[in-house]
Amino acid sequence: MSIFIKNAWYVAAWASEVKRDLFKRRILGENVVLYRKEDGTPVALIDRCAHKLVPLSMGKLVGDVVQCGYHGLQFDCSGKCVQVPGQDRIPPTAVVRSFPVVEQNNAIWIWMGDPALADPAKIHQVLKTDDPKWAVIDGGYQHHMADYLNIAENLQDPAHTTYAHVSTIGNPASSEVPVKVEGSAGFVVSFRWTNNAPPPPIDVRNGKFTGMTDRCQYYNFFAPCVSRVDVVTMDAGQEHTEENMDKGLRAYSYKFLTPETEGSTHFFWMHVRNFGLGDADLEADQIKGMNQTFDEDNAIVGALQREQAIVGVRQFTWLAIDAGPARVRKMLEEMAQAENQKTA
Amino acid sequence: MSIFIKNAWYVAAWASEVKRDLFKRRILGENVVLYRKEDGTPVALIDRCAHKLVPLSMGKLVGDVVQCGYHGLQFDCSGKCVQVPGQDRIPPTAVVRSFPVVEQNNAIWIWMGDPALADPAKIHQVLKTDDPKWAVIDGGYQHHMADYLNIAENLQDPAHTTYAHVSTIGNPASSEVPVKVEGSAGFVVSFRWTNNAPPPPIDVRNGKFTGMTDRCQYYNFFAPCVSRVDVVTMDAGQEHTEENMDKGLRAYSYKFLTPETEGSTHFFWMHVRNFGLGDADLEADQIKGMNQTFDEDNAIVGALQREQAIVGVRQFTWLAIDAGPARVRKMLEEMAQAENQKTA
Amino acid sequence: MSIFIKNAWYVAAWASEVKRDLFKRRILGENVVLYRKEDGTPVALIDRCAHKLVPLSMGKLVGDVVQCGYHGLQFDCSGKCVQVPGQDRIPPTAVVRSFPVVEQNNAIWIWMGDPALADPAKIHQVLKTDDPKWAVIDGGYQHHMADYLNIAENLQDPAHTTYAHVSTIGNPASSEVPVKVEGSAGFVVSFRWTNNAPPPPIDVRNGKFTGMTDRCQYYNFFAPCVSRVDVVTMDAGQEHTEENMDKGLRAYSYKFLTPETEGSTHFFWMHVRNFGLGDADLEADQIKGMNQTFDEDNAIVGALQREQAIVGVRQFTWLAIDAGPARVRKMLEEMAQAENQKTA
Repeated sequence: MSIFIKNAWYVAAWASEVKRDLFKRRILGENVVLYRKEDGTPVALIDRCAHKLVPLSMGKLVGDVVQCGYHGLQFDCSGKCVQVPGQDRIPPTAVVRSFPVVEQNNAIWIWMGDPALADPAKIHQVLKTDDPKWAVIDGGYQHHMADYLNIAENLQDPAHTTYAHVSTIGNPASSEVPVKVEGSAGFVVSFRWTNNAPPPPIDVRNGKFTGMTDRCQYYNFFAPCVSRVDVVTMDAGQEHTEENMDKGLRAYSYKFLTPETEGSTHFFWMHVRNFGLGDADLEADQIKGMNQTFDEDNAIVGALQREQAIVGVRQFTWLAIDAGPARVRKMLEEMAQAENQKTA
Repeated sequence: MSIFIKNAWYVAAWASEVKRDLFKRRILGENVVLYRKEDGTPVALIDRCAHKLVPLSMGKLVGDVVQCGYHGLQFDCSGKCVQVPGQDRIPPTAVVRSFPVVEQNNAIWIWMGDPALADPAKIHQVLKTDDPKWAVIDGGYQHHMADYLNIAENLQDPAHTTYAHVSTIGNPASSEVPVKVEGSAGFVVSFRWTNNAPPPPIDVRNGKFTGMTDRCQYYNFFAPCVSRVDVVTMDAGQEHTEENMDKGLRAYSYKFLTPETEGSTHFFWMHVRNFGLGDADLEADQIKGMNQTFDEDNAIVGALQREQAIVGVRQFTWLAIDAGPARVRKMLEEMAQAENQKTA
Repeated sequence: MSIFIKNAWYVAAWASEVKRDLFKRRILGENVVLYRKEDGTPVALIDRCAHKLVPLSMGKLVGDVVQCGYHGLQFDCSGKCVQVPGQDRIPPTAVVRSFPVVEQNNAIWIWMGDPALADPAKIHQVLKTDDPKWAVIDGGYQHHMADYLNIAENLQDPAHTTYAHVSTIGNPASSEVPVKVEGSAGFVVSFRWTNNAPPPPIDVRNGKFTGMTDRCQYYNFFAPCVSRVDVVTMDAGQEHTEENMDKGLRAYSYKFLTPETEGSTHFFWMHVRNFGLGDADLEADQIKGMNQTFDEDNAIVGALQREQAIVGVRQFTWLAIDAGPARVRKMLEEMAQAENQKTA
């Protein structure tokens, strides 16, 4: 049974990656070629000519159509063949699959399932990318050698940061604060507040706090592919309203998981914050720190996936800290199963 | 079912590749070791000692016999063991398979099937390699990551040159001229004449044409492994006899396909021409251009073969331009099938 | 059926390889992590956390316990979990397998089978490593791409040295002397004496012989994993007693074979001798010569194993020189089979 959930919007690429040439990427096991029309609209086709299967990404763009690099067949943005060399008649089989794509919040989103269900309104609403009071780091990309379920578990798992990310986000102090796990349809959140405590030096620097602070982390997972970690540091003694939290230091750390194959994942990351706008040093530090953190995750999650394959077992022991990760996995596995049964 | 046709002569190596040392090459799935006797005669044995299976190519030549590098067993040119260390008796199992080989037209030809059927008179007659009025480029070799059927189709396919070989032999003008396909037992030819047309600049330079020309390309395939493309440019208005064609610019572009495995092929190429003898610049250009062209073929045919393996389908749509390629494939597949049934 | 014999002591590592950090090695198909306690005692655990299977070698040592690099679970030397982050209760499943290990004769020996049978008294008694009159070269390690059965055969095979090790230990003269093969439970020896012959120049240099000599090689194999080649050169005309042999030049060349997988082997080598103590040049020559010899063995035995896998046959022809190798293989295969049947 496939672990893929096909009827969903995934990040196929950053908006900046797709231009007026042919960009290929494997997504949910399919080879896809992406490009922009002359008017900038993104297009996604299966990367395989309808004649002799040559990857269309080996060809070239001619206006808004893709010309195969083998015999020159031309396909328009809908995948329809519009020219065959040496003959006028275009056979009805000369068509390639096209995929719904939408550009939104700096990314190209793709729908790999039934096109009839591809409602752009269902694309995940990424926060604050268009708010001038917030700074955006986008374009982060890593190739992870693990399936998206193991990566999703890891993203929903605050407990590992103390040990796996010692030199970046690891924080032994906060590891003792218990995490609550809640959720709703297609959503899981693990969170913790550390109230009325002195702020760490980095928050003092960024937020100029003079007294005690309340701090929180929310690990949100929106099925099937978006993780958003919210981090807030605010003056202690206030109500935890959206408005008050926005007055403190606040950041959203996004990861968009796009399965490449059953064992590898495109890991797109983005970061938005309401402080340090225009602070190039801060931003360079953040980029470096996040890439290091995600490299460490990739090493560990890749290793556990290899061990799972050897042993044939996913986990030996269940701990209290597994509540969030286990809930995310269960949600995703049930969605994949439901979709598989419907298709079967 | 194997796609190999075993009862046929294949180019095992260029004559210049095989010397007084042990040269190994995988041919039709078999590891073969080639060498020359002291009198220059080529020899081919299975590359595997009859004792403990060590590749004989790890050993050395002692006179005309091969000595295994593990225990020193010696095998003569017929594969018979003539010496065993530490004992006088030579066990009847101590024999390695030998393959019929013949040196002809600058190549070593090998017969991988039933030796009783190996008639040297059936070796393909390569044209003009011994004619002092013709120049020969031989020794061309590439390793292609596709099976010989896909490569044979590509060699019988004039239509792709316009798109796949833009900077070398691609010629949009001629792509509009329809190709005729004919054939006979073990032979397919696709050809086209472009008559009474101005010659391209390169032909003017090589042939000093002052008026209109007739030009042709013949794509000949001789089963199972020889492709010969004949190209002629001649003054217009003459009969297209062999004699008149020889008065114009004429060249034979040979490719000899030797399956290495079910998914890879030794691609030997040779070129003979009746013009520009002694023109080193012309020859350097030709070598460069042909290597580039065949690299491009390898990239595309390798890619389509990978896609075929993923999809489990060889072709989605049939076009008019597929007549020649499809006919070559059918011929080869029927020959392989007939041979498999006879052996079974 | 597995070719592994599990209930036996194997060299897991040289004593010098295992320190106060986490050292990983695959042994008999299992990933093992090795380290030393603060008091120097070696420890071996399965390299896989009892929680989510992350290799423990990605974590770190905390005193005598291993802390997983993912969530900080701590395991003691017996494999028992002694700390779980975020909870007081330690689940009964939180335990990793530990392996009996013993440090002896410069090596760490490991028992991969039933721990109840792990009797340290059964560890192979390596000779002379603690005798000040003998010089020891240890720490030799190579990774060999063949199973331990093929390597064991090769080590029991004097006949190949003449052809495979021409520039080091190959000696055409002695190849004509017949080898005797004897054995007992768990032991095979092939040996030959060349008596009353002039000594080779190297022995004259090392041993100051003035007359005729008796020389011998004994190829001993102690199941399942120790090969010891004894070489003696002594004045001719004496009885071949242990005492007299010790008065001549005498050396023990050890190889300890530890299966890594069904197709690869850790090849540890050690050499002890009663001459040239403190002769750094001699020792450097020996190290260089032995590494070259074992590289040559690895190339040949690796090649024959690949050919065996292609052909599905291990050997085509049996020769007189195969008596020793065949007897070693039979012994090892029978031991593996007996153990498999007992476990099944």
